[in-house]
Amino acid sequence: MKSVAVRRIERAEPAVIDGLATLGVATVHEAQGRFGLLKPHIRPIYAGARIAGSAVTVLTHPGDNWMLHVAVELCQPGDVLVVALSADNTDGMFGDLLAVSAQAHGVRGLVIDAGVRDVADLKRLNFPVWSRAIHAQGTVKATPGTVNLPVVCAGEIVNPGDVVICDDDGVCVVPRASAAQALELGRKREARETDVRARLAAGELGLDIYGMRERLVAAGLEYLD
Amino acid sequence: MKSVAVRRIERAEPAVIDGLATLGVATVHEAQGRFGLLKPHIRPIYAGARIAGSAVTVLTHPGDNWMLHVAVELCQPGDVLVVALSADNTDGMFGDLLAVSAQAHGVRGLVIDAGVRDVADLKRLNFPVWSRAIHAQGTVKATPGTVNLPVVCAGEIVNPGDVVICDDDGVCVVPRASAAQALELGRKREARETDVRARLAAGELGLDIYGMRERLVAAGLEYLD
Amino acid sequence: MKSVAVRRIERAEPAVIDGLATLGVATVHEAQGRFGLLKPHIRPIYAGARIAGSAVTVLTHPGDNWMLHVAVELCQPGDVLVVALSADNTDGMFGDLLAVSAQAHGVRGLVIDAGVRDVADLKRLNFPVWSRAIHAQGTVKATPGTVNLPVVCAGEIVNPGDVVICDDDGVCVVPRASAAQALELGRKREARETDVRARLAAGELGLDIYGMRERLVAAGLEYLD
Amino acid sequence: MKSVAVRRIERAEPAVIDGLATLGVATVHEAQGRFGLLKPHIRPIYAGARIAGSAVTVLTHPGDNWMLHVAVELCQPGDVLVVALSADNTDGMFGDLLAVSAQAHGVRGLVIDAGVRDVADLKRLNFPVWSRAIHAQGTVKATPGTVNLPVVCAGEIVNPGDVVICDDDGVCVVPRASAAQALELGRKREARETDVRARLAAGELGLDIYGMRERLVAAGLEYLD
Amino acid sequence: MKSVAVRRIERAEPAVIDGLATLGVATVHEAQGRFGLLKPHIRPIYAGARIAGSAVTVLTHPGDNWMLHVAVELCQPGDVLVVALSADNTDGMFGDLLAVSAQAHGVRGLVIDAGVRDVADLKRLNFPVWSRAIHAQGTVKATPGTVNLPVVCAGEIVNPGDVVICDDDGVCVVPRASAAQALELGRKREARETDVRARLAAGELGLDIYGMRERLVAAGLEYLD
Amino acid sequence: MKSVAVRRIERAEPAVIDGLATLGVATVHEAQGRFGLLKPHIRPIYAGARIAGSAVTVLTHPGDNWMLHVAVELCQPGDVLVVALSADNTDGMFGDLLAVSAQAHGVRGLVIDAGVRDVADLKRLNFPVWSRAIHAQGTVKATPGTVNLPVVCAGEIVNPGDVVICDDDGVCVVPRASAAQALELGRKREARETDVRARLAAGELGLDIYGMRERLVAAGLEYLD
Repeated sequence: MKSVAVRRIERAEPAVIDGLATLGVATVHEAQGRFGLLKPHIRPIYAGARIAGSAVTVLTHPGDNWMLHVAVELCQPGDVLVVALSADNTDGMFGDLLAVSAQAHGVRGLVIDAGVRDVADLKRLNFPVWSRAIHAQGTVKATPGTVNLPVVCAGEIVNPGDVVICDDDGVCVVPRASAAQALELGRKREARETDVRARLAAGELGLDIYGMRERLVAAGLEYLD
Repeated sequence: MKSVAVRRIERAEPAVIDGLATLGVATVHEAQGRFGLLKPHIRPIYAGARIAGSAVTVLTHPGDNWMLHVAVELCQPGDVLVVALSADNTDGMFGDLLAVSAQAHGVRGLVIDAGVRDVADLKRLNFPVWSRAIHAQGTVKATPGTVNLPVVCAGEIVNPGDVVICDDDGVCVVPRASAAQALELGRKREARETDVRARLAAGELGLDIYGMRERLVAAGLEYLD
Repeated sequence: MKSVAVRRIERAEPAVIDGLATLGVATVHEAQGRFGLLKPHIRPIYAGARIAGSAVTVLTHPGDNWMLHVAVELCQPGDVLVVALSADNTDGMFGDLLAVSAQAHGVRGLVIDAGVRDVADLKRLNFPVWSRAIHAQGTVKATPGTVNLPVVCAGEIVNPGDVVICDDDGVCVVPRASAAQALELGRKREARETDVRARLAAGELGLDIYGMRERLVAAGLEYLD
Repeated sequence: MKSVAVRRIERAEPAVIDGLATLGVATVHEAQGRFGLLKPHIRPIYAGARIAGSAVTVLTHPGDNWMLHVAVELCQPGDVLVVALSADNTDGMFGDLLAVSAQAHGVRGLVIDAGVRDVADLKRLNFPVWSRAIHAQGTVKATPGTVNLPVVCAGEIVNPGDVVICDDDGVCVVPRASAAQALELGRKREARETDVRARLAAGELGLDIYGMRERLVAAGLEYLD
Repeated sequence: MKSVAVRRIERAEPAVIDGLATLGVATVHEAQGRFGLLKPHIRPIYAGARIAGSAVTVLTHPGDNWMLHVAVELCQPGDVLVVALSADNTDGMFGDLLAVSAQAHGVRGLVIDAGVRDVADLKRLNFPVWSRAIHAQGTVKATPGTVNLPVVCAGEIVNPGDVVICDDDGVCVVPRASAAQALELGRKREARETDVRARLAAGELGLDIYGMRERLVAAGLEYLD
Repeated sequence: MKSVAVRRIERAEPAVIDGLATLGVATVHEAQGRFGLLKPHIRPIYAGARIAGSAVTVLTHPGDNWMLHVAVELCQPGDVLVVALSADNTDGMFGDLLAVSAQAHGVRGLVIDAGVRDVADLKRLNFPVWSRAIHAQGTVKATPGTVNLPVVCAGEIVNPGDVVICDDDGVCVVPRASAAQALELGRKREARETDVRARLAAGELGLDIYGMRERLVAAGLEYLD
């Protein structure tokens, strides 16, 4: 594989990115038509964080974290590192020192389809990570990969500059070009849900609010006593 | 598969159910003879919850949460939704809105052999869930399943109206007909354990309290220095 | 398999053990040359604990926790129980009562390549556990195994008396004979990292601090704009 | 768990059982409304076998194959042993000697949610097995389980006397009471498929044979050039 | 997700495609710089097949095989169906009838990140399949997906018209635009390997043929007697 | 990790090794007291091979097969390569060329806790492999490991010169020092089993041959009609 690092990438508008963070993963995923979710093995290392940012994409090899150092230099404030692997791996590719460095350059967090370590430190630093594993296994710096080329991370295509949204439900990718539209659709969805939530809290049934009863009978549902 | 929803089910006595919740999963599982546990991939979405309730059983298909809306209408206060799948799946079949609706009808929690989403909201609502996964993946409403027929959820048979006990150790099913007996046996076990716990805390050994030394030697154990 | 329990084992110096605990898993693993880590399926049952101790090694069979009772008698204050299995298993082999007993004998914690239960109690007792699973499944006491023979636990050889270090990043084994050296190397590593951390926090890049730029170009990395 | 072995069970008609074997797993599964399939981790140890028989159900514990000896005595010619486990396990619970014994009593094959061994011998004996794993790990005979009580095997309820059908696609359970109906429905399905197969082989499209085009458009499908 | 089926796609030259099939997965993967391999959970349903063809890409939902019927109409002789899923699933989405239909339209085989069934029939038809699972679980036709849009299948991006190569080692994707170059590079690699193979067969060591001895010492390797 | 290759190792007697191969994995595993089996994820790449040989042990890193070239030089006729990994990995570390080279030096086969490729070639060469995966993923030669130090491979300790036995049931390790005794015990076991097999084939029950009836009743088994 040719090793390339691309210096300049396009990013979405900061206001759009922050708006998507406020909506959260589940709402944006639905609003953009139910695509863009990373597989469920990607989990936060601690609960409660919610971020969005511009993806700086990295491709590395199992047990080798060299390109993470290359990537940090190419990050801007507001970015999120998105690390894909050329083969499944759980080694601890990122820890305390890289987090301090990334934070110093304004990086908001990390999404990695491998392992991380020093997780007590990462929590104390308030540097959120979504990863496949937590493992202390050390890595080498021997084989270069790529930075800011498109990658497949946990089953999803991530292009450099795409918006990644991360919270307790997982990670969702929004293509940069449609980020503003996703924000608008997400806000509409949220508004509709606020109304529905109130009716459900009052005891109304989804069966009635969404008008499902006839469709269920047509699909063959039969009630017995 | 024929799609059926059964409206009326028998439930155990509320006092029995609440007594079983107090005992917890491990004690009841032991007291009823070591059966009834769901497989260990079913985990709470947040630590510290402990509930018991009458199972309203649901069978759904991968990526389709239609029957959950049907099920909520058939729930009574004190029930727990138990959702089985016709094939392994991790989609986020249940979230904030369904939780609000279920809570409005008195449902105490959810056990689901699939994924859930909006987990930060579920925690804030204090609506506990035991699930196979956390994932935001959206679902459709296209193919009906069943409500209140017997299901196999995470490896265990659950009949509608069975008592399900859920805590940090997992989920245990108690057949409705033997719930009162399980409670009685569980309380006796708990009483015995209180005594043993005090002796162990004082430094006595299980080897002596349980009289294991001779049996171990008979089974071939040899001590070396 | 012949069933043997060895009463006397050699242990490392208490000051060395406590020093290794302070350094933590990731640092010691690196300091001793990147070996000794248990596989990443071994996870703490609650976050925030960090211990080190002398391994009392146990080999048990799936669904059988008899040897844990044998092992507790052979523990001294400062020990950590390390439990290997003769085949993969997730049953809840250890719970509240065994924890009370182990604590009464000064045991600092448990590492087990199987399941544990009563995890809410274990947390309240402040008895930390690193395990493969949490499950309430009860066990029998029918087939003896071994205590204080070498075992393979989660992929690593653990000899009785080896130092095991456990924190949020997992579990690392340090051979007893090289524990003092690992402590010394770990402290040096920590000192170096303190300096690097400060430079990274000030915005310097790992690329420069570690002098990676030339090696990366030599390895084929190409920058594009 | 109380240990019980039930001597007498009801079985389906031999002609019905053999008819179901001829139809095979996929056809019968569809014909009876898409239920009854064991999970896909159950695989044949060699390709090409296709059997059906009356289930003699066994519940055993991880690493303990004692009840298999109890079960063989209760088998009749035409039976299939169906072995469930009280917890996930891959030990080699069944091998050459048990196969010779089972064959001597007319047993047609084995379905087991654990491991088997001596698989070269089993193939030479022409004794087919569908299992979770192949592993030589030896077992003990220490803790009794049950024979001919209902079990959950690989996610499905199997009652003693149910018909189990096994081929390269996996294993399907047909309740004894509905076996004759399943055979009839399966034969009708097979007849319909013979006709459809010929039309498809001639190049006709499923889209036309099944009349899907309008439904697809109604569901939102759009064609682009 | 918007449901779209694209009728016309570009394909690589037939001679290039057939040349890539002759080289096989491992050689082409290396020749194009070590990318393009699907994850190792994709396995052939029977050994010995080796094909290459133009990808007709399909995205379906768990338990729903509707789009496979749409896709068959859009296939040309020499194509290979490549089926991605919107969430992990093992249902038997493809069987005997679809294979007969696909073969009638010249389709060479199937790559699917889900399950297939009727595998004995598929083998008899000589219709090769590379899949995640074998399972008879039936599917519905309720929710449309896409045909001939880019997909991520088993971790790799596949664009419609890309060349997919499939053999006993797995599946490799070659971008249509670089297929001719991959063929050329692959042939050169094969020629080199023929020479090396003869020298290795004569007992020469890779250490000497590849000149590794100095590099190994430089990297720190030490020999002991 | 310090990179070391040890040139000279002790081996067991050829006649002992060949005798163990004749007995096979399951018999030897039982004869030596039920230890030494690699985990069941290690499977043969084709059925029917049965070998035994002296272990030349290799430790490599994920995605790096450099040490395999070092190891081949240190092999003697009758050896088996046993490859452990410093972290879980499925890359195709071994293929056609390395097999030709190993065969030229008399190596009987390969056991590897990672992936292999060119499996059609390996089968044609009659070079048997037991591996964790089949995958074409290419590897680098960047970081040295060790040869002929003790390793943990698929959960078992393997010392250089230990006898490894490999057949369709998996892989078993016999310590060099006890290989002759294991052969003797295995032959006795085999002789006993020949007698038992004949009695079982004649319809006698294991319950009677092994005298289990009383022990089963004592353990609580109850028969019902």
